[in-house]
Amino acid sequence: MKAVQYREVGKGPEVVEIDIPEPGPGQIRLRVTAAGLCHSDWFLMDLPADQYAYGLPLTLGHEGTGIVHKLGDGVEGIDIGGSYAVYGPWGCGQCHACSQGRENYCTRAAELGITPPGLGAPGAMAEYMIVDDARHLVPLGDLDPVQTVSLTDAGLTPYHAIRAAQDRLFPGATAVVIGAGGLGHVGIQILRAISAVTVIAVDQNEEKLALAAEVGAHHTLMSGPDTADEIRALTGGQGAQAVFDFVGVQSTLDIARAAVAVDGYVSIVGIGGGLLPTGFFSTPFGVSVRAPYWGSRSELHEVLDLARIGAVTVHTEVYGIDDAVEAYDKLHAGTVRGRAVVVP
Amino acid sequence: MKAVQYREVGKGPEVVEIDIPEPGPGQIRLRVTAAGLCHSDWFLMDLPADQYAYGLPLTLGHEGTGIVHKLGDGVEGIDIGGSYAVYGPWGCGQCHACSQGRENYCTRAAELGITPPGLGAPGAMAEYMIVDDARHLVPLGDLDPVQTVSLTDAGLTPYHAIRAAQDRLFPGATAVVIGAGGLGHVGIQILRAISAVTVIAVDQNEEKLALAAEVGAHHTLMSGPDTADEIRALTGGQGAQAVFDFVGVQSTLDIARAAVAVDGYVSIVGIGGGLLPTGFFSTPFGVSVRAPYWGSRSELHEVLDLARIGAVTVHTEVYGIDDAVEAYDKLHAGTVRGRAVVVP
Amino acid sequence: MKAVQYREVGKGPEVVEIDIPEPGPGQIRLRVTAAGLCHSDWFLMDLPADQYAYGLPLTLGHEGTGIVHKLGDGVEGIDIGGSYAVYGPWGCGQCHACSQGRENYCTRAAELGITPPGLGAPGAMAEYMIVDDARHLVPLGDLDPVQTVSLTDAGLTPYHAIRAAQDRLFPGATAVVIGAGGLGHVGIQILRAISAVTVIAVDQNEEKLALAAEVGAHHTLMSGPDTADEIRALTGGQGAQAVFDFVGVQSTLDIARAAVAVDGYVSIVGIGGGLLPTGFFSTPFGVSVRAPYWGSRSELHEVLDLARIGAVTVHTEVYGIDDAVEAYDKLHAGTVRGRAVVVP
Amino acid sequence: MKAVQYREVGKGPEVVEIDIPEPGPGQIRLRVTAAGLCHSDWFLMDLPADQYAYGLPLTLGHEGTGIVHKLGDGVEGIDIGGSYAVYGPWGCGQCHACSQGRENYCTRAAELGITPPGLGAPGAMAEYMIVDDARHLVPLGDLDPVQTVSLTDAGLTPYHAIRAAQDRLFPGATAVVIGAGGLGHVGIQILRAISAVTVIAVDQNEEKLALAAEVGAHHTLMSGPDTADEIRALTGGQGAQAVFDFVGVQSTLDIARAAVAVDGYVSIVGIGGGLLPTGFFSTPFGVSVRAPYWGSRSELHEVLDLARIGAVTVHTEVYGIDDAVEAYDKLHAGTVRGRAVVVP
Repeated sequence: MKAVQYREVGKGPEVVEIDIPEPGPGQIRLRVTAAGLCHSDWFLMDLPADQYAYGLPLTLGHEGTGIVHKLGDGVEGIDIGGSYAVYGPWGCGQCHACSQGRENYCTRAAELGITPPGLGAPGAMAEYMIVDDARHLVPLGDLDPVQTVSLTDAGLTPYHAIRAAQDRLFPGATAVVIGAGGLGHVGIQILRAISAVTVIAVDQNEEKLALAAEVGAHHTLMSGPDTADEIRALTGGQGAQAVFDFVGVQSTLDIARAAVAVDGYVSIVGIGGGLLPTGFFSTPFGVSVRAPYWGSRSELHEVLDLARIGAVTVHTEVYGIDDAVEAYDKLHAGTVRGRAVVVP
Repeated sequence: MKAVQYREVGKGPEVVEIDIPEPGPGQIRLRVTAAGLCHSDWFLMDLPADQYAYGLPLTLGHEGTGIVHKLGDGVEGIDIGGSYAVYGPWGCGQCHACSQGRENYCTRAAELGITPPGLGAPGAMAEYMIVDDARHLVPLGDLDPVQTVSLTDAGLTPYHAIRAAQDRLFPGATAVVIGAGGLGHVGIQILRAISAVTVIAVDQNEEKLALAAEVGAHHTLMSGPDTADEIRALTGGQGAQAVFDFVGVQSTLDIARAAVAVDGYVSIVGIGGGLLPTGFFSTPFGVSVRAPYWGSRSELHEVLDLARIGAVTVHTEVYGIDDAVEAYDKLHAGTVRGRAVVVP
Repeated sequence: MKAVQYREVGKGPEVVEIDIPEPGPGQIRLRVTAAGLCHSDWFLMDLPADQYAYGLPLTLGHEGTGIVHKLGDGVEGIDIGGSYAVYGPWGCGQCHACSQGRENYCTRAAELGITPPGLGAPGAMAEYMIVDDARHLVPLGDLDPVQTVSLTDAGLTPYHAIRAAQDRLFPGATAVVIGAGGLGHVGIQILRAISAVTVIAVDQNEEKLALAAEVGAHHTLMSGPDTADEIRALTGGQGAQAVFDFVGVQSTLDIARAAVAVDGYVSIVGIGGGLLPTGFFSTPFGVSVRAPYWGSRSELHEVLDLARIGAVTVHTEVYGIDDAVEAYDKLHAGTVRGRAVVVP
Repeated sequence: MKAVQYREVGKGPEVVEIDIPEPGPGQIRLRVTAAGLCHSDWFLMDLPADQYAYGLPLTLGHEGTGIVHKLGDGVEGIDIGGSYAVYGPWGCGQCHACSQGRENYCTRAAELGITPPGLGAPGAMAEYMIVDDARHLVPLGDLDPVQTVSLTDAGLTPYHAIRAAQDRLFPGATAVVIGAGGLGHVGIQILRAISAVTVIAVDQNEEKLALAAEVGAHHTLMSGPDTADEIRALTGGQGAQAVFDFVGVQSTLDIARAAVAVDGYVSIVGIGGGLLPTGFFSTPFGVSVRAPYWGSRSELHEVLDLARIGAVTVHTEVYGIDDAVEAYDKLHAGTVRGRAVVVP
């Protein structure tokens, strides 16, 4: 079968031919219906050899959907031919965090050598993939896999970030979304769907701000030295009760810090390498700052249910597997509008 | 191997010889180290034939601990020879509730024919038992199985009930525990361990009230027509912010209703068949009433951690498997102090 | 000044002339801009003399808005000429509940003789009214008082009921609203604004169901013997995660009980006199039942903010103070669409 | 009357004679029964003139208790002769935060010129003090004012910090308390009272670690370069689910950052001037960092209730008002064990 692999540090993704994998006991083989590309794929492919720790060759794709093709021994509750999304942040399934389905914070994964598909384990960017356990599948039902696949990360990650801030998202509050790209434009829709906050989108790209407005942002601001002041002006001087930074570089975190209200919340979602100095004399009284990671199993159920009722739609660019390298190049160049998806 | 089974409606438990079961793929065979008896065993054995729906013969025991004896194909993260507690309310593992480890509220179990061990599936009251999935095992470590086994229900059930009321258990609040038996005497300890509420225990048995005081109740009240008034007197007229009724007959629920404070919480844990009429003109403003069921996976972790630090100790009476029928008789007669355990 | 008073048990409301009241220290006199009528006004006027405990004569109106006309000594932070809504469930301001602004559950109000305006204290249905403390005023800003006044009860009460169920209102969940009248049609809008649940409205009146659909209900059901089955059919057999009964008679509570899902939530908001028998063998596993009362101070802020962003609109019928008796008659007859408001 | 005032920048506290103040409408005059000293008094007295913004002369003391001596016009629900604690972080009483009693995060205080007693308004370190509103008084009942006064800050502040982390304080979790001084030794007791976590105390002073052990810390660690490693060793390599830093200098925040677990919580309580760089590549996945401020009104009720049941005891050194300067000197030198209190 064809697969998109990272085979050599520094060389970028390649389309290759590999064997179709067999499911062991408890495992499921999917015929992949869609696989999403993500900036974090480039994050790891840009690492120097001495920092790269994901194994080679690595089949890419931590966003995946598929049709159940073959069941390993002992799998129950999963239907051959059924359409599913893959929950990506695989954990041990047994520790305290995993016992709540918060496998994204598994405390034993490192020790047991468990890694997510596409980030260690073979990923979704291939004609077939192996899912290690039935609990990592969530039924898609009638949802279109190609339109939905990105939600397994680009929907789940903002959803998790937003839910953690829920008590700051009361009516009358304001939420700022910095970065209206793949995750941010979904984050705006999630905020609109599950709360009544006023949403301010910030970006440095006119087209992305237009997308932000289209998907529900009440205000859009071109990123610049006055952004925090503009946010304060829009909020009667109070600042924003919640700021979700989907970029995470130092300049956007500086905006977050300057724009957040007393007792507010800053979520650092983007892996831009910035850090937010937290404490008295830096952040307003009572501000919480968190850098969350991906999301929980039940949150993936909930994100898919948002899609099911039409509350969240991902803007996608679709590529065949032979065009995957081109798609990755476009992602690297920052010219993808919304999210890129490969259909094997 | 020996097993304690319910084989014929109306006939009570019997000790019989059956085959040692084999674990299928994904399953685990435990050598049972302890199995707990529970009033709900009698609840089902007292049902008439036309209401009995648990299958026959039924190996009893929904509280179990064991040493891992054999792994089915594909089981990972579980050690042969390791000591584990069994999480009992098995669900599908995949629905929204199960994805949070709240398998006690699984929405697909009935449809898929999934039942807990000892309440449909073969239970722990045997020399060996099969656990259907690694996620239903929680490590015991150094905890003594015999002293601990009852916590899988008699600890988990009150813990779940209490955690659901947590926002009413603020310092200054009062919690009433009705019924200081197997579950109640553990509930008192849990309340003392995870909150700073004042605990009032109510029972109709002097010995159980003595046990209640021993395990931490601040006040003990002999159940009677004035109980609710006495509770109001002890709470400056306000009533109790939370009432946990581990008996659940009509007379105890009447006490709960009369003793609960405005904006308070009543948890009906005991399956005594009583009902609490909820609404204006019956319950004070803002009172919540809930009949919870068993507990979640993470809550079992937490209950065992309470045992680990010595915060919860079950008073147990220990029997060999050949004396299991006698133990059940004693349980039926209400003369067990704390909880009865069979060691195969 | 003119006032609408209940002066004699059994005689109904009357328009009378009384003195303009003077604000004492810490009090505020409002020139009333709007006062709302409520079914609970009739509830108390329908009481026999031996159960009536609100004092006579009673100036009606527990929903009020006004312009600040005169400040008593020592009032701070309130502007003469400012437009405010009155928070109605006055409490002592000092007990544990009041210290959280949950004055609706004040534990000292009865002892101190504190009563809400229109339900003991002189209410809003007059040209002027006295508000006992600045903390009971919430700024209206540009909100139209006539369109907004009903939110102080008909918005606040459902908002409080809904927020208490918030953890059951996850995406993918279903909420049932029984009764699409004054409170119910606002409850539907609140559910749509602050969550992504599917909303099913139930009523016995076609016109009210039309209103329900207009304000956002996804499904409308004519109340009848099959209503619970229809709800189960719409929810894949699961039932509704939350049911808000704004009628509260026995037949609607029976629907609630039959329609609620495992681990679901029933809120009894309407004072119809029904009771819901809660417990095993009556309600599904884990169901919570609560009869909340009015709402908290911060919740009134939040409801007004929902109005401010256009998320909640009350359908109102407006009357002059001289037509107040007619308006009350129409309310009694059940022919008000939405909510009736008197403008003095 | 005698008062302890800060009268000139750089000069430290002085005992002076001033007029007894009169309560205006809505205000209450207390005869002070005790006033607590706090490091933050020195924080402001150590500020250079160009940064000092608290007014001069400033009567010190933001921790106060007193007997009600005189009521201003219109005060209700407060008894002459009653013993009360003063809630210190005065807010407007009307904004969204204040409407929940979270006056510590009032959004209008700065604009309205409202300041806490002892931090702008005249404080408790005098024979009499004025409290601006009845809502800022919490009844002491039989609690000894001298033993209790420190709880209004040194109890309330850690309580607020701890409650915000409550969902990380599950049984099985570990909490680290850095700094076992005035606030820290109360924090340890609060953690023990309202949760079942394992408590590790860290300090650089043997005597304070001895106090930590005495009040309930399970482990004590001398602060040093290996502290974080020692915490990881005590937690099976996981780190602590919550870290409360009551010092807040850079070296203690470095320990916090290195010792916190995945999905953990760091609370920066001490105003030591340190900052915690938060984000990927600095803090573990999912860690939240917050610098809270003082506490809410209901939290003060709860802290006093903890004292009432004996769960929290402040170690106090008691001084007469004439010895207040000496007490402040000792506090500056770091030689107070527990908390210093002045009794006028």
